[in-house]
Amino acid sequence: MRIAYVVPGPMSKTSMGAKEMRRREELLNSWAFPGTEVSVVDVPSGPASIESAYEEAMCVPATIELIMKCERDGFDGAIIGCFGDPGLEAAREMVTMPVVGPCESSMLLAAGLGHKFSILTIFDSMAAGQELLAYRAGVKAKLASVRATGIPVLDLMKDPEATKSRLIDVAKVCVEQDRADALLFGCMTMSFLDMADEISAAVGAPAVNAGKAALKHVETLVSMGLSHSKTAFPTPAKMKAGQSVETLRVA
Amino acid sequence: MRIAYVVPGPMSKTSMGAKEMRRREELLNSWAFPGTEVSVVDVPSGPASIESAYEEAMCVPATIELIMKCERDGFDGAIIGCFGDPGLEAAREMVTMPVVGPCESSMLLAAGLGHKFSILTIFDSMAAGQELLAYRAGVKAKLASVRATGIPVLDLMKDPEATKSRLIDVAKVCVEQDRADALLFGCMTMSFLDMADEISAAVGAPAVNAGKAALKHVETLVSMGLSHSKTAFPTPAKMKAGQSVETLRVA
Amino acid sequence: MRIAYVVPGPMSKTSMGAKEMRRREELLNSWAFPGTEVSVVDVPSGPASIESAYEEAMCVPATIELIMKCERDGFDGAIIGCFGDPGLEAAREMVTMPVVGPCESSMLLAAGLGHKFSILTIFDSMAAGQELLAYRAGVKAKLASVRATGIPVLDLMKDPEATKSRLIDVAKVCVEQDRADALLFGCMTMSFLDMADEISAAVGAPAVNAGKAALKHVETLVSMGLSHSKTAFPTPAKMKAGQSVETLRVA
Amino acid sequence: MRIAYVVPGPMSKTSMGAKEMRRREELLNSWAFPGTEVSVVDVPSGPASIESAYEEAMCVPATIELIMKCERDGFDGAIIGCFGDPGLEAAREMVTMPVVGPCESSMLLAAGLGHKFSILTIFDSMAAGQELLAYRAGVKAKLASVRATGIPVLDLMKDPEATKSRLIDVAKVCVEQDRADALLFGCMTMSFLDMADEISAAVGAPAVNAGKAALKHVETLVSMGLSHSKTAFPTPAKMKAGQSVETLRVA
Amino acid sequence: MRIAYVVPGPMSKTSMGAKEMRRREELLNSWAFPGTEVSVVDVPSGPASIESAYEEAMCVPATIELIMKCERDGFDGAIIGCFGDPGLEAAREMVTMPVVGPCESSMLLAAGLGHKFSILTIFDSMAAGQELLAYRAGVKAKLASVRATGIPVLDLMKDPEATKSRLIDVAKVCVEQDRADALLFGCMTMSFLDMADEISAAVGAPAVNAGKAALKHVETLVSMGLSHSKTAFPTPAKMKAGQSVETLRVA
Amino acid sequence: MRIAYVVPGPMSKTSMGAKEMRRREELLNSWAFPGTEVSVVDVPSGPASIESAYEEAMCVPATIELIMKCERDGFDGAIIGCFGDPGLEAAREMVTMPVVGPCESSMLLAAGLGHKFSILTIFDSMAAGQELLAYRAGVKAKLASVRATGIPVLDLMKDPEATKSRLIDVAKVCVEQDRADALLFGCMTMSFLDMADEISAAVGAPAVNAGKAALKHVETLVSMGLSHSKTAFPTPAKMKAGQSVETLRVA
Repeated sequence: MRIAYVVPGPMSKTSMGAKEMRRREELLNSWAFPGTEVSVVDVPSGPASIESAYEEAMCVPATIELIMKCERDGFDGAIIGCFGDPGLEAAREMVTMPVVGPCESSMLLAAGLGHKFSILTIFDSMAAGQELLAYRAGVKAKLASVRATGIPVLDLMKDPEATKSRLIDVAKVCVEQDRADALLFGCMTMSFLDMADEISAAVGAPAVNAGKAALKHVETLVSMGLSHSKTAFPTPAKMKAGQSVETLRVA
Repeated sequence: MRIAYVVPGPMSKTSMGAKEMRRREELLNSWAFPGTEVSVVDVPSGPASIESAYEEAMCVPATIELIMKCERDGFDGAIIGCFGDPGLEAAREMVTMPVVGPCESSMLLAAGLGHKFSILTIFDSMAAGQELLAYRAGVKAKLASVRATGIPVLDLMKDPEATKSRLIDVAKVCVEQDRADALLFGCMTMSFLDMADEISAAVGAPAVNAGKAALKHVETLVSMGLSHSKTAFPTPAKMKAGQSVETLRVA
Repeated sequence: MRIAYVVPGPMSKTSMGAKEMRRREELLNSWAFPGTEVSVVDVPSGPASIESAYEEAMCVPATIELIMKCERDGFDGAIIGCFGDPGLEAAREMVTMPVVGPCESSMLLAAGLGHKFSILTIFDSMAAGQELLAYRAGVKAKLASVRATGIPVLDLMKDPEATKSRLIDVAKVCVEQDRADALLFGCMTMSFLDMADEISAAVGAPAVNAGKAALKHVETLVSMGLSHSKTAFPTPAKMKAGQSVETLRVA
Repeated sequence: MRIAYVVPGPMSKTSMGAKEMRRREELLNSWAFPGTEVSVVDVPSGPASIESAYEEAMCVPATIELIMKCERDGFDGAIIGCFGDPGLEAAREMVTMPVVGPCESSMLLAAGLGHKFSILTIFDSMAAGQELLAYRAGVKAKLASVRATGIPVLDLMKDPEATKSRLIDVAKVCVEQDRADALLFGCMTMSFLDMADEISAAVGAPAVNAGKAALKHVETLVSMGLSHSKTAFPTPAKMKAGQSVETLRVA
Repeated sequence: MRIAYVVPGPMSKTSMGAKEMRRREELLNSWAFPGTEVSVVDVPSGPASIESAYEEAMCVPATIELIMKCERDGFDGAIIGCFGDPGLEAAREMVTMPVVGPCESSMLLAAGLGHKFSILTIFDSMAAGQELLAYRAGVKAKLASVRATGIPVLDLMKDPEATKSRLIDVAKVCVEQDRADALLFGCMTMSFLDMADEISAAVGAPAVNAGKAALKHVETLVSMGLSHSKTAFPTPAKMKAGQSVETLRVA
Repeated sequence: MRIAYVVPGPMSKTSMGAKEMRRREELLNSWAFPGTEVSVVDVPSGPASIESAYEEAMCVPATIELIMKCERDGFDGAIIGCFGDPGLEAAREMVTMPVVGPCESSMLLAAGLGHKFSILTIFDSMAAGQELLAYRAGVKAKLASVRATGIPVLDLMKDPEATKSRLIDVAKVCVEQDRADALLFGCMTMSFLDMADEISAAVGAPAVNAGKAALKHVETLVSMGLSHSKTAFPTPAKMKAGQSVETLRVA
């Protein structure tokens, strides 16, 4: 199967660049089941990273357009490459192939690892948004806590050892104080540091790489012949009534 | 005080047109407390009406930009003119004046009228989204039901008597079967039909005009010197660190 | 419009006295929208302040009687002047004009300011009661915490600076530890100290004056032609069947 | 042990009269464990029956006064003889002997009989209040439904066979449609009709007599040496500071 | 009435031995209402104590068999003598006499003592299981916390003073930090130390002996002629269709 | 990877027999990702099918023993082959390889397909148990309904067309009345009828084969190097303290 990992910002034009996109593509392919091929693609313009509701809102239109193009290009499924799952509902309305978001995918996976899980996020101000995502995913009852590292997304890769050390410190508080049985990385750059095993070993609780979780989720759906429900994510009524997607926009 | 009612679609370019915008402006000014002046403004392009998550996502960037302009132009507060409250969180991050959404405003008002309320909406497929909005507003425990009339937004004004009759039928089911004590119109065009009093009389329970509710909400906030909390809706971290809003976008 | 602010205790006979009633009346009128006139009235006898379920129960019969008199006297709406909203449901059964309680009003307002709010209350023993009120208002999901200052109601005005300092200390714990985005004063005497702006500035989160919130709530209802639902707060069955209110009591 | 069953209305002066009080006293004594003696007492004035929040509020002050007298008279515990548990929290603040309410007692008992229970009540308008009582008792998660018979309290005993037949009809809907595993009588007059066994047999699910349940609850507490927690129901602060109960009231 | 207290492990073959069984039987009989006779019986083999889901699963088949035998032997009700209530649902399917579990019984009793209660348990790893039991009992909304003493079951009686001191320390944290109004002993050996009164006095909040609570619960049910609902705990379908219990097992 | 599908009853000795076990093994292997090998094994004795809490309790000890043996035999993961997930927690305490249950696996998968899902089960009496499993899985908020077909497990394969027709009828009620967006088969025999695609097409909503879902779940865990958390499912304390599993049982 062919899976598109859609970065909702213009990563190839940022400091991370095309090199980081290729590194992530290689990692994703190394994690995949035999027979899966993953392509990492990005949108032409938008925010360099997504750390606010404003940046999230800005990135969505181009992201949905790119996901629609991926379906036309023959992909079997898509991953939205941001932990905030921007545009997930809208994308599901517009395509029939399965589209997954790393936040939803990793929360559902973490829910099965123990009684409670915690999310390691970037800033305290993102906690309420991630609680809302846990509610939307249906697993808020399993969310022990959201705790921030305070390291901005674009700085996470500057000193990986410092990042790891900070992640371990915060993760320990989640396990010891909040009774988390499992941990999620609430940011794709955290996940692509590929440190889940080391952090898990350090804190004594499984840590979920959200990129891997999203990949396994979409592989599962494609291999089972399943996709999101069209009663939940219906084609817009105007299109059902005959309008094309282009005419939805009035200018 | 000066309040901007921001239509998140290009209403002046649709079949409703500038005339309907002026009609709504007159209604809003007639509903206002003495001393309040309301201006209805729309975005230059976007969906003709918002009946799906896709259309909602499409309208948000231009809507936030217009709200930011309204603040620069000296408005004291803004109403997002769509019951889905599109872009509410992002707009609150980008301005300091109060911004309200008719869905949140009317749910909080309805919560104080009785034990439970119901929403009269357009399509069944919008029910889950409105339940999520009730959760986000904090009053999901008071939501009795969401029931659809099945009349598309752009058809609501074609035969107002038929619309009223259908609204009354659905409202009665909410009161008798779902034990709703109050009713909300889950669409601004329903609210601007200005039929709340007639429908309330017909079903024996108060009906909330979401446009009025949003206006009273923003008038309340401005008159109390209150605005949304900046711990909940913080300025994006990159802007706090010195970037301008223009440089948030990489192209 | 004419609004009655009904003090559920004999304030004019307490140490606060008629002078404090006039001061509160002036404040309320200064907060009102143009065209609103507020009168502060009190009951002839009852507890000096309400700090327990017992004192609350004692004050209710006289309070409802006074609210019924206010309606007969031509008032357009009433505020029950105690944060515990004593007798709110019973009063709504007995009159058709809108009756609001500062607790419900301010919780619904605070719910719209951020993700979570906290209540600053008098004693720890009042926390569970205020959680129940948050549940009844439908916004328990937004309640971050209830924290007590430990200063009895009748002592709050003795040293306003000490009270303010204590309120700021407790409010900071709510924001920093409980992630409250907004604060409520859980006592009318706290609210009438009129310190919300200073406390808000000190803690970096909006603080809601419950007296102002109740006033805006009732002004909103009267101006919208709305009142509480009679399916939720019905006239007692015996009165519907023809009995007068006097004959409900057997002696 | 000596238990007071406190009727919160002047039953001896109503059409039910002293005879019905003696009948209830005999029933209660016949249900008691060996060694328990139950006395039925009523307040001197108040509503003839309690079918609204207004009537409930009216009855509370005299009821608490009578419970305080019962403690002084040497009773070991008290039952508030109305399914709405009027004044339960306030009474617990004022005495140290256990005070129970039939609603709380019977809900906690019913919670242990199966997964869900339903309440058979008087009027539809009482459903929301009984849901609030289920929340306060902590067992709202077990409440399947509240369904009304539509027979006023004072008419329940006029035609016991008609009442029984109506109760069975409503109970069957609770079991078949709402998946209730057990049933409560949401009114003391229903309970004192002593029909639980017949109704249970007719619907195939246990039916709880709230009067029996309250009696067993208070017998359990007294025999275990337990009473309600004084952290939950503290003595009013003014009394802890030395005031007598008489001086709490200013007139 | 005759009540069986069924120990779900072979206590007579452990270090506690038949002597401890007799001591518990004497205590239970001393706590009972006049006319109740309690017999303590144990299963022939199984775990020495139950501190894990594995040990709980191991003990259930023999425990249910013994409860079925008790019913055949003429007992009127049974108590499962372990705070985890092992096999409670299955046992209720197989007998018609009431069967209670100390966890459910004591939680329902504690729910009526105040707003919140806490459980004192053995190990932190048991907290999630006891939260699940609170959910099953329907009173999770009243659970303030589960806190562990860290003393294994079989060591609790070695130094009763040290155990009491540790219980008091943990109980104080529950009351002061978690706002618990009442406490439960989450282990039968803790309860049979019979220290509830001393611990209650030390922390200022009622403490519930789960053994006493279960006994009062089953006495209440038997005296009211009630048992668990057969819609909730039905006889297995194969037995309704004519199979004997022996033929349910294929070997 | 090698996966054991552990049937918790002696299927090879029932009317289904070894032939049905081989058919299920072939189906499972046909559903697996490349590189996965699935073996179906059963326990030596126990209930023929599991339709009650009693039968579930009876099957657990042998099932855990067999899962422990599978780990010793080199399997990489195990599936408990019954929708009730019998013994899931206990098994996870005793092994380190991932163990999944079809109920938990399929609920977590269904949670990602839409807003709500329904379960098609055998008997009405199983609904409450499956709601409890949804709570334990953390996704109760997504459960629209549990509806029974009324066909006993051992009869499901007798007339597959009649079964399919009944499943479609019940599924339609779930979608139309309960607003389910996805469906689960709440019984492994239903799932192994392999009719999910036909039923999904007939009702217009995705249907989840719980056997496939469990397989994909365990493949995901093994391929990610994850297993259930040992803070949630710890090794029994006595074994940590040095006892062998054999000595946990006293006889």
